[in-house]
Amino acid sequence: MAALAGLGVLGAGRHLWKLPVRLSAGLQGCGPRRGYIAGSAERFPTFGLLFDIDGVLVRGHRVIPAALEAFSKLVNSQGQLRVPVVFVTNAGNILQHNKAQELSDLLRCKVDPDQVILSHSPMKLFPQYHSKKMLVSGQGPLVENARALGFQNVVTVDELRLAFPELDMVDLQRRPKTMVIWTGARGVTSLPLKVKVLCLGVLLLGEPVRWETNLQLIMDVLLSNGNPGTGLATAPYPHLPVLASNMDLLWMAEAKMPRFGHGTFLLCLETIYRKITGNELKYEGLMGKPSILTYQYAEDVIRQQAERRGWAAPIRKLYAIGDNPMSDVYGANLFHQYLQMANRGEEEQQTGGQQKQQPSATRSCASILVCTGIYSSQDPGSQVPTPGREELPFHGHRDFSFSPGLLEASHIVHDVNEAVQLVFHQEGWA
Amino acid sequence: MAALAGLGVLGAGRHLWKLPVRLSAGLQGCGPRRGYIAGSAERFPTFGLLFDIDGVLVRGHRVIPAALEAFSKLVNSQGQLRVPVVFVTNAGNILQHNKAQELSDLLRCKVDPDQVILSHSPMKLFPQYHSKKMLVSGQGPLVENARALGFQNVVTVDELRLAFPELDMVDLQRRPKTMVIWTGARGVTSLPLKVKVLCLGVLLLGEPVRWETNLQLIMDVLLSNGNPGTGLATAPYPHLPVLASNMDLLWMAEAKMPRFGHGTFLLCLETIYRKITGNELKYEGLMGKPSILTYQYAEDVIRQQAERRGWAAPIRKLYAIGDNPMSDVYGANLFHQYLQMANRGEEEQQTGGQQKQQPSATRSCASILVCTGIYSSQDPGSQVPTPGREELPFHGHRDFSFSPGLLEASHIVHDVNEAVQLVFHQEGWA
Repeated sequence: MAALAGLGVLGAGRHLWKLPVRLSAGLQGCGPRRGYIAGSAERFPTFGLLFDIDGVLVRGHRVIPAALEAFSKLVNSQGQLRVPVVFVTNAGNILQHNKAQELSDLLRCKVDPDQVILSHSPMKLFPQYHSKKMLVSGQGPLVENARALGFQNVVTVDELRLAFPELDMVDLQRRPKTMVIWTGARGVTSLPLKVKVLCLGVLLLGEPVRWETNLQLIMDVLLSNGNPGTGLATAPYPHLPVLASNMDLLWMAEAKMPRFGHGTFLLCLETIYRKITGNELKYEGLMGKPSILTYQYAEDVIRQQAERRGWAAPIRKLYAIGDNPMSDVYGANLFHQYLQMANRGEEEQQTGGQQKQQPSATRSCASILVCTGIYSSQDPGSQVPTPGREELPFHGHRDFSFSPGLLEASHIVHDVNEAVQLVFHQEGWA
Repeated sequence: MAALAGLGVLGAGRHLWKLPVRLSAGLQGCGPRRGYIAGSAERFPTFGLLFDIDGVLVRGHRVIPAALEAFSKLVNSQGQLRVPVVFVTNAGNILQHNKAQELSDLLRCKVDPDQVILSHSPMKLFPQYHSKKMLVSGQGPLVENARALGFQNVVTVDELRLAFPELDMVDLQRRPKTMVIWTGARGVTSLPLKVKVLCLGVLLLGEPVRWETNLQLIMDVLLSNGNPGTGLATAPYPHLPVLASNMDLLWMAEAKMPRFGHGTFLLCLETIYRKITGNELKYEGLMGKPSILTYQYAEDVIRQQAERRGWAAPIRKLYAIGDNPMSDVYGANLFHQYLQMANRGEEEQQTGGQQKQQPSATRSCASILVCTGIYSSQDPGSQVPTPGREELPFHGHRDFSFSPGLLEASHIVHDVNEAVQLVFHQEGWA
């Protein structure tokens, strides 16, 4: 089997800089010759594909036609994938297996739950919080997701609201009709047994509903050091640990303009925390693209997939296909930077959570930007600053510094079908 | 009738600086002698009282006992008020007459709707927007309030959401089940006739419910120049006019710690607008304490009240009693500063809206801070910065610069009863 000479690509726009990459060890056969196919047997892939979902494969619940074409190329005659594939989404208000089923139906290709990486999946790597009582915010199968991540002791914002009805006051209709008697002291609230145990941390798994309620109660927990309903003289700082996933400010749904993502909720929370206390809210863990944690996790899943399929060649290269420059391109390029540094033998960057147990064979990660979602090369608005400004506003998260180079995709293509064609061409696959 | 020599007071804490004030013209009788009572006939008041409500008179729906004592002093044997009184609240999600009725019941004293000044009441002074189609955000009797202010052509956020269901996407349960067919173009939405007319401005009347929906749709209207559902290449700037009322970050309800006010919602909107566009959201009108607009309006109502009651003496002094340093104290002191400048013959500050038609007789405005609400002298937490900070965080609105002197009340008293006693003492009333 020929091994491909992978090309490390960190591009400025469409320019390719070819970086030498070691041949994959353990392969038999020919030296690196692009395009060589050894008979009709399928070669072991030495690359993996990371697909974003919204704006790349689907818009809302509708499949993007190019995705069908792309996946028809990716499966063999038995309907199995020919290369390791994961679906890396910043969504989190869903169950892995439901998303896998939805993708299977839409793409007409069997997708296993393990192939679906949600924004919070890397939280499995934070076992030090798994037995602590955590306040969890999000919607959909929230508790189920928290448990699947390993958190055994969670209380939802809604449960907290019911236990402390005097805390959620924005909605006139929800205000309690009977109140504790105001005796001249600052009021007494009786605590149901269930929530007498202090919250020891906060989990932000995805956009909740009723942001006013969630923002208020999360702030109450942080300012009371986990014991809402009490009033502390001074807000503790550092505050309780906060783990959050999905920092996307915007995402592409059916509407013409992108919709608020969880990143907008986090922005509100950070701003409110800073306004009220004067201090910065700090995350113990912040994951989902473009966090390196997510790419490390994805790389691991790709590697395990290759092993299960009996593909002997180590995975050398990842291609990340997405529609959002700030999460997909930035993240892939950041990870590529990380891999380059790791390969040069430098000390692994601290990225929180557990350190990976297995040494990584991956050498590079290329970013491919499609135009069917957030980014659109036909929409000058996405490239034109608003009047009065010299440059486009930075839509990334506060904790990610604005490095313009990291926002430049290795490749920009029209859609995911073109992306797959490009990868095959790069890798010398038919 | 003796006329009182009003004392202009702008204090640093509890120190009083006595500023000379002209005698009220048109009065007969004695010169200024404090404490003099001409027989048993009630003197014409030359002062008016502005009462904040939450944290001063009530906590939620419970009357603060000191308020009953205070008002027993303020009414005569016929149950009528002896001095002009207005209730100036930053609340807005209520009807004037409902609040008046509630206060009448709680205080056991007849309160007319006209005596209740809500945060948005000064919007009556913006007739240039009254016939324009305005998107209105808030809750409770929203449309009724908007109409009462003079706005004849409003569309609510909820109506907009129903007309454009693809815009409100945070709540998984609200997402439309059937979508427009994605044809490869950016989608087409059919517009119900009702909302085909462009929105020409935005009215923010108070905290809405479901902040995610309101924030999203308000942003859509601003970014689309009033035509949501379309996608403009460049967000227009300046944006559509925005009128907002109530910038209170926090307010005191039954809970031990203050609750988010409309100011928190505005903070989220301003932050999101800046993050997405890179530009600052600007208000055409921002009212409610501490805006001078509100005090000008209140002063006018006080004056009209005095006229209706046949009190011939001009009102020289206002006392504003509140619990929130940033809205009540700051506002009263800012208004005092404004009155001082006006009296010195300087050009009236531009405060937006219509200029007042009648010359003002008022010379000063004193701020009295009570400890039964947001501010509590017994709570060291309200005076101690959080760890790591040198000074207390600034809870005022972005558009009000942090002038520490303006945050210092003329007087700090325990409760509203002491406040009224202090006023009577100052004015030489029994």
